[in-house]
Amino acid sequence: MVQLNGWIEFQRMNKFITLRDAYGSTQLFISDNRTDLIEIIKDLPYESVICVVGMVNMRPEGQINKKMKTGDIEILVDSIKVLNKASEHLPFSIRQFNKAKEVTQMKYRYLALRYPEIQKNLRIRSKLLMKMREYLINECDFVDVETPTLFKNTPGGAQEFIVPTRHPGKFYSLVQSPQQFKQLLMVGGIDRYFQIARCYRDESARHDRQPEFTQLDIEMSFVDQEGIIDLIENLLKYSWPETITTPFKRLTYEDAMKLYGTDQPDLRIPYEIQYLTKFVNMATLEKDMKLTNSKDCEVCALVFPNKCKYLTRSVREEFNDIKNKYFPTVKLFQIKTLDNSWKLQLEKLFSTKIAEDIIRTLNLNIGDVLFLTVGPKLNSQKLLGKFRIEFTNVLENNNLKIRSPGYNFLWLINFPLFEVNESQLLESMHHPFTQPHPKDMKYLETEPEKVRGLHYDLILNGSEIGGGSIRIHDTNLQKQIFKMLNINEKQLSHMLEALSSGAPPHGGIALGLDRLLCILCNAEGIRNVIAFPKTIEGRDLMSEAPVPIPTEVQELYHIKIIDERSNI
Amino acid sequence: MVQLNGWIEFQRMNKFITLRDAYGSTQLFISDNRTDLIEIIKDLPYESVICVVGMVNMRPEGQINKKMKTGDIEILVDSIKVLNKASEHLPFSIRQFNKAKEVTQMKYRYLALRYPEIQKNLRIRSKLLMKMREYLINECDFVDVETPTLFKNTPGGAQEFIVPTRHPGKFYSLVQSPQQFKQLLMVGGIDRYFQIARCYRDESARHDRQPEFTQLDIEMSFVDQEGIIDLIENLLKYSWPETITTPFKRLTYEDAMKLYGTDQPDLRIPYEIQYLTKFVNMATLEKDMKLTNSKDCEVCALVFPNKCKYLTRSVREEFNDIKNKYFPTVKLFQIKTLDNSWKLQLEKLFSTKIAEDIIRTLNLNIGDVLFLTVGPKLNSQKLLGKFRIEFTNVLENNNLKIRSPGYNFLWLINFPLFEVNESQLLESMHHPFTQPHPKDMKYLETEPEKVRGLHYDLILNGSEIGGGSIRIHDTNLQKQIFKMLNINEKQLSHMLEALSSGAPPHGGIALGLDRLLCILCNAEGIRNVIAFPKTIEGRDLMSEAPVPIPTEVQELYHIKIIDERSNI
Repeated sequence: MVQLNGWIEFQRMNKFITLRDAYGSTQLFISDNRTDLIEIIKDLPYESVICVVGMVNMRPEGQINKKMKTGDIEILVDSIKVLNKASEHLPFSIRQFNKAKEVTQMKYRYLALRYPEIQKNLRIRSKLLMKMREYLINECDFVDVETPTLFKNTPGGAQEFIVPTRHPGKFYSLVQSPQQFKQLLMVGGIDRYFQIARCYRDESARHDRQPEFTQLDIEMSFVDQEGIIDLIENLLKYSWPETITTPFKRLTYEDAMKLYGTDQPDLRIPYEIQYLTKFVNMATLEKDMKLTNSKDCEVCALVFPNKCKYLTRSVREEFNDIKNKYFPTVKLFQIKTLDNSWKLQLEKLFSTKIAEDIIRTLNLNIGDVLFLTVGPKLNSQKLLGKFRIEFTNVLENNNLKIRSPGYNFLWLINFPLFEVNESQLLESMHHPFTQPHPKDMKYLETEPEKVRGLHYDLILNGSEIGGGSIRIHDTNLQKQIFKMLNINEKQLSHMLEALSSGAPPHGGIALGLDRLLCILCNAEGIRNVIAFPKTIEGRDLMSEAPVPIPTEVQELYHIKIIDERSNI
Repeated sequence: MVQLNGWIEFQRMNKFITLRDAYGSTQLFISDNRTDLIEIIKDLPYESVICVVGMVNMRPEGQINKKMKTGDIEILVDSIKVLNKASEHLPFSIRQFNKAKEVTQMKYRYLALRYPEIQKNLRIRSKLLMKMREYLINECDFVDVETPTLFKNTPGGAQEFIVPTRHPGKFYSLVQSPQQFKQLLMVGGIDRYFQIARCYRDESARHDRQPEFTQLDIEMSFVDQEGIIDLIENLLKYSWPETITTPFKRLTYEDAMKLYGTDQPDLRIPYEIQYLTKFVNMATLEKDMKLTNSKDCEVCALVFPNKCKYLTRSVREEFNDIKNKYFPTVKLFQIKTLDNSWKLQLEKLFSTKIAEDIIRTLNLNIGDVLFLTVGPKLNSQKLLGKFRIEFTNVLENNNLKIRSPGYNFLWLINFPLFEVNESQLLESMHHPFTQPHPKDMKYLETEPEKVRGLHYDLILNGSEIGGGSIRIHDTNLQKQIFKMLNINEKQLSHMLEALSSGAPPHGGIALGLDRLLCILCNAEGIRNVIAFPKTIEGRDLMSEAPVPIPTEVQELYHIKIIDERSNI
């Protein structure tokens, strides 16, 4: 005799019941002569919870269900106890073939959690995190340290949520990452720290972001870039459910932009950007095309061999819209090498000789798609980088297999330390604690844009899943960087004092677990690997949070709500 | 040759250096002829970070230091590289015998973290949590699920921090525990959930509380009280660094109040409250003593045999103050059985006959301390329960060993489901989701104060370290309880809907890890087992959080600060 507790997923003829529990489904069988059981089951709503006792029998020959894990057995029911009757009218039923809309799933999340996919994803998540902990603690002697989330606002970086306190006018900020704490732990002599840390960012709506998210946060003392890269490769190798090959490929930021037009290249796509500038007389071209800013103009090309028929009118229009919206300074030519008009077009653009050089270089044949750009280098790269992804999606939506299968990990290294913002001021490309590349220290005062940082990003299948750096451990260098970035050092005086208290050389990394799991689980979005996700607007549809608060709570925290609507 | 990285803790004669790293200290030795090394070391401030290469040698016979783990060896230094020079004037040095004040330690927490005690505590914490995870995931198939901390306010319970959003007038609340989520996970079919969860409470200052804290949060489906108790005992047995004996003792709430005057009894203390009411004519006594509320008056006693000399005048005064402040309705007699006056006092209070009965019952001898109370039962119990702890502390401060050694775990069961508040309204003793005891369902409508809840607390050495319950899974019962508690069911409609969607019977528990670790590490307070603690007022002395925020951030979140000071 076995006992099973679970949910009635389905029944037919008051005879065959599919009972679902946390581990899968099992078929129950009620004998025709057990009218007592039939009486219990016949009007019991689906999703009611029952406790069943019965005998495990092999199913009769013709009734074996090979699609079901337990498809070769059934339980001959001896007794049924109804533990909790479900309501007759649930918002949706738990059937894979007729899934509820995402908003409905979010409103009744406790029901959606019963979908086998979400059950599976949450279990994979739990297991992966456990393997990571095992590797770090048991194999590498790391210390799991919990750091506060109620802290002080960090200058620069993302918008942080604020938390009013009973001290009038004084607020905590919810940390956007444990960055400061992990560095302070290094100063404090916890030389191998990790934490699976909750982080908070109040950033604008994006599909793969949540107001709170989780990262695997790591920091080590007496380590260099190779040490961190090595650790992470071994960590992933240890914890990943499938075999992965190390070492991972590496690309410099410069090469990534050059070949793929992005710092998150998806190397599963075989196409690369090519450069034709050397064949061309740029001066003539600029005049012909009336290019305004000719300083760093390039002629770039991206070829999709033999994919002509997928460049339909609507795709072309969509691609033109992208260009016009985001990269208006780039001239774009979308060419199908189908009849002979394309050669004439190239000859007209350049010259016969140059057109021939280009055709030879790009190895163009009949039936290819050629995206050709003339314009400022960076924008041309980014535009073609975007087409590289988008046109691959077009091809895959047409059932072509372009991306190679499996998990493609990639390190991106040698990022610039700074970027220049719209006001022509320096900003950190990542954060102000990143150590400049030792070979570029000589440019720090004179040509800061040329300085690379000891920063590294980890890319998986074209998504950034992690990033880190070797940090500055010298107080004076840190002060200099704050100054260059117009950061008031008083706001970070505790960090400067810590660096002058015997700070070891140190570095670290953080992996974004939601996105990592989304890729590992092959989920549609990160909301499918999170138990209780919020909408892009940050709403919890189940409880309706955020909600209004009573006046007395406002008074407790010394705040008053300003409602613009009341000012009309 | 070995290489060591670490901090210079101490040096003498430019010859002997104590190098400290995350794992302990090692003595370095510099030969007199290595003037180059002496040059490096002679003015190097303590706490500077160096990298040393050298040979491991046994120390000469007379120089072995048995108090030091590495006391039988030293490193003959071959080279020293200064990795980061520390400032000359650090706020304090890392010497055990001259510890900095706690506020100083908190302001320079990155220095305080270098104290061996805090290093040790953080490592014990990391290891204990890992063992707990191993047991739950690897041995018992639990799923580690992360639940949101930004949620909706929960009616009743502790004051929750609020988080303004960009939606005008709408706020998240930071969860005080994952209570709702864990129950919703059960409804969702994750039948064995745990999480090491960050929780938030904005409660009044108390020494062992932090605005954010961590709990091991557990919930199971298809389980009863015995199942949870069994799981936790095995979990602690598996993860505790020392051997502990299971099953733990159990006490009902009623017995705990009766014998120890508290629901967190410390069973390491051998003294128990005794009851003398049966010997006494209460009617006479009440008249004599002018007791007003005589309904549930009791005569209670707590005896400390042969401890007369520790009941000094100042202790008596302090104890009288406690009584007057917290339990003014109780009559208290602090008696030393030293000369014969105490017998007369008892005879005068009662009668000769009754005094004899009392002396015989309490087995009083010369030299004892007797605390005798007359008054309302509950307050008398609480007062004597307090004296039981406080007088034991007095004795132990006088170097007597009263508490038995080791870890004394205890389950407290059969709590009342409700308590009656000052406005004579029912309140949950724990929370409104607790299942009433099946045997007491008959009293629910008529005598709710008599109803026990299926709640259990775990006590360790007289501190509550955990609590949990079997939850209500029936919608109608839950509605009835909400009504009895004056909770507007609309605020929790998602919970009611979830219960009617096929909720399995379920229950769980949460262990407060900060307090648990404080006891395990034998730390002075929970701040010694937390990497970055806040003061009782919720301040982070290092960063000075909480801090004022700029006007534009107030505008972003549609709030305005009301500063009472500006209204003067």
